[in-house]
Amino acid sequence: MKYDVIVVGGGPAGIISAVTAKKYYSDKKFLLIKSVGAGVVPCGIPYMFSTLKNCEDNALGNKPLEANDIDVEVNEVISIDKDSKKIHTKNGKVFEYDKLVLSIGSKPMTPPIEGIHKQGIYPVFKEMNHLKSLKDDIKKDKNIVIIGGGFIGVEFADELSMMKGKKVTLIELMPSILSNSFDEEFSKLAIDELKKSKVKIINEKKVVSFDGDERVTAVNLSDGTKIPCEVVILGMGAIPNSDVASKAGLDIGKSKGILVDEYLRTSNKDIFAVGDCCEKKDYFTRKKIPVMLASTACAEARILGANLYGIKIIRENKGTIAIYSTKLGDLTLGSAGLTESFAEKEGFDIIVGNSESIDKHPALMPDVNKVKVKLIFSKYSGVLLGGQVAGGESAGELINVIGLAIQKNVIAEELETLQVATHPKLTSAPTTYPLIIAAQDAIMKMMK
Amino acid sequence: MKYDVIVVGGGPAGIISAVTAKKYYSDKKFLLIKSVGAGVVPCGIPYMFSTLKNCEDNALGNKPLEANDIDVEVNEVISIDKDSKKIHTKNGKVFEYDKLVLSIGSKPMTPPIEGIHKQGIYPVFKEMNHLKSLKDDIKKDKNIVIIGGGFIGVEFADELSMMKGKKVTLIELMPSILSNSFDEEFSKLAIDELKKSKVKIINEKKVVSFDGDERVTAVNLSDGTKIPCEVVILGMGAIPNSDVASKAGLDIGKSKGILVDEYLRTSNKDIFAVGDCCEKKDYFTRKKIPVMLASTACAEARILGANLYGIKIIRENKGTIAIYSTKLGDLTLGSAGLTESFAEKEGFDIIVGNSESIDKHPALMPDVNKVKVKLIFSKYSGVLLGGQVAGGESAGELINVIGLAIQKNVIAEELETLQVATHPKLTSAPTTYPLIIAAQDAIMKMMK
Repeated sequence: MKYDVIVVGGGPAGIISAVTAKKYYSDKKFLLIKSVGAGVVPCGIPYMFSTLKNCEDNALGNKPLEANDIDVEVNEVISIDKDSKKIHTKNGKVFEYDKLVLSIGSKPMTPPIEGIHKQGIYPVFKEMNHLKSLKDDIKKDKNIVIIGGGFIGVEFADELSMMKGKKVTLIELMPSILSNSFDEEFSKLAIDELKKSKVKIINEKKVVSFDGDERVTAVNLSDGTKIPCEVVILGMGAIPNSDVASKAGLDIGKSKGILVDEYLRTSNKDIFAVGDCCEKKDYFTRKKIPVMLASTACAEARILGANLYGIKIIRENKGTIAIYSTKLGDLTLGSAGLTESFAEKEGFDIIVGNSESIDKHPALMPDVNKVKVKLIFSKYSGVLLGGQVAGGESAGELINVIGLAIQKNVIAEELETLQVATHPKLTSAPTTYPLIIAAQDAIMKMMK
Repeated sequence: MKYDVIVVGGGPAGIISAVTAKKYYSDKKFLLIKSVGAGVVPCGIPYMFSTLKNCEDNALGNKPLEANDIDVEVNEVISIDKDSKKIHTKNGKVFEYDKLVLSIGSKPMTPPIEGIHKQGIYPVFKEMNHLKSLKDDIKKDKNIVIIGGGFIGVEFADELSMMKGKKVTLIELMPSILSNSFDEEFSKLAIDELKKSKVKIINEKKVVSFDGDERVTAVNLSDGTKIPCEVVILGMGAIPNSDVASKAGLDIGKSKGILVDEYLRTSNKDIFAVGDCCEKKDYFTRKKIPVMLASTACAEARILGANLYGIKIIRENKGTIAIYSTKLGDLTLGSAGLTESFAEKEGFDIIVGNSESIDKHPALMPDVNKVKVKLIFSKYSGVLLGGQVAGGESAGELINVIGLAIQKNVIAEELETLQVATHPKLTSAPTTYPLIIAAQDAIMKMMK
């Protein structure tokens, strides 16, 4: 069967590539092939256990594809012949393409730790049935160990701590948690919030083995500690899923990601790749960075979709900024761009501005939360390199103000004199708006 | 007494001018003269009646001034002699200045309607005692009429509707409400929300007189309707408070605002003016606009403060963007830049993009609200001219993403491919982030 455009992969990057491209090139015939029939919304995975009533509430369906007249095939692609422009599936079907988009995602890391394949130990696959069986196990059991203090690990810890009668332990190799995205003082807030929810956090310990016959019964740490448990969740990172691309002869990077240029073109002119399966270049360092986020993937997918048959939308930004938010207990955290510690490690000459405020005004308004903002600027050019926010829920969009500022190369002076909307029930006061005050703090230091 | 810098006016613009200038010029001696001893946070005024427990919870004090070593004098300035650089106060004091900053605010309009000065009819003065007596009256009485469907009027209507046993009527001359800031479909949402709260809205009727002997007993409308009431609140706009500047011989604009340039300098080289008392130029139309907002005033005050003794901070933006947010019942509304109807009236060739989404994801997450976004772009340059948002509380910062985009002259394609942070508990999904989808909607129309 022949299609103009075939998209392989049914996650957000695949869906948005297909839907965007169909909007720009509506006369083309589209097929999307996905290996998992029952997919899930990736960012919603941690919330399938307590916040959402049913696992099905987090299903990722075919609605946007159907609405855009895109055919769907549930099947696994086993090989790509880039010369004849054909792809072969596990069940023997052959599809011919004019343009091919690979959005084949990533796979969770399962390092060769003794016993890691025992029952009860769960890497986080984006599959409904896998997650349902994890949920069944969690419901039955009491002692849960989460390995890895990145976003997925801490979000699982937060969510499971809300379930009655669970004892949740989070293990992280580094001295802090979320340390790729936050400097120490912000990570500390996350740690405090998780501790409030009775999560036990163990830092600077390595997992050396898992006990148990068929099923896991305990986790053993490098210092000899044994943590009895019935369920283990692995949040140890992910690697690009590029095997089929590599076999097809596409250029692959050192991190195993498919190599693409700024318009998501691979080394073959008719094949594009997008999302977790490909390598990303950092906006400021211009080095490869391992950012795997649905939001980043969707931004790439929109560039790809518009430009599939010729460059219609010029890519204005110079690379990927890591931009995240999360909510742990009552604390919202956001990070965009470079952290202070990362910027220093990479040799950026920086000035940091800080502010502390409240997210409504005056102070006695109901539901007031503290807001803490940190902005990292290039010392001599004044350009904003990164920002971190901790506060109430409004911090979830506040980090997007910072994100846009980074993507527009805003300088400290522009932030200091920014015109913003403020309201007693919604934001900090105009006199203490935290981005402005943090920028001003940085400027005062620059002038010294 | 001689000071290096004298700031006249104790509102947000005055405070922020003084505090910012003191940061940049810490060796100078500062005095702030304010005519009202007991001031209030302007944006908090509507919330002094039910949301805040005590009127004093909305007091605007001298803390930031004291913390920055700025002297404070409560006194009324009656004249300025710009040749000898002296100012005279009502109680006979004379102060000498090197630089003078006028942040003398605005006064509420009280058009010459028959009976408008009766007891029980309240213009909204930013004075604690005045507002306390309004609160006392409101507590006693049942029937309250609010005249004017701008922000202050609708916020009062929303707040008073939450008090038990009050019958609130809002009267507006125009066919809609909030029509300076919102197009019809957004104003409609505000109307629906106020109606849910049992506010009676009367549009397209003029107030012709007030009944009553000493105290008001009813409001008479142009069509003969009589609305019995015990309290009337006037939200009919405000005019710049420029009398003392005018008498001193400073140049004054047609709207009665003090004329200032982009660095807030008046026609006299040692006198600056900031906030509601001076004229503002619209960012896009480059015409005068009557925007009176604490947030705008604070942005001006920061430019002024930094540049009081020489230009330290280049003003990057080209004028004032109207940028507002408010919350009525459960509905958050935000507007920035030009509305569609205003842009059309001013002769801008435009394309509008719309989107509707939800503010969390997936759809079954708790506390999900609808989000509606409208973006107005210049048709041929693609530049963002304005935006409107209706949604849950996160819309309060979402409008600031739009505001920054306007101030950085962002084009539709940049918004379509923007990298954003998304999270199930905090934002729309990455696949449906409303600014991106609205930008894409506009691009599709541009391409046709």
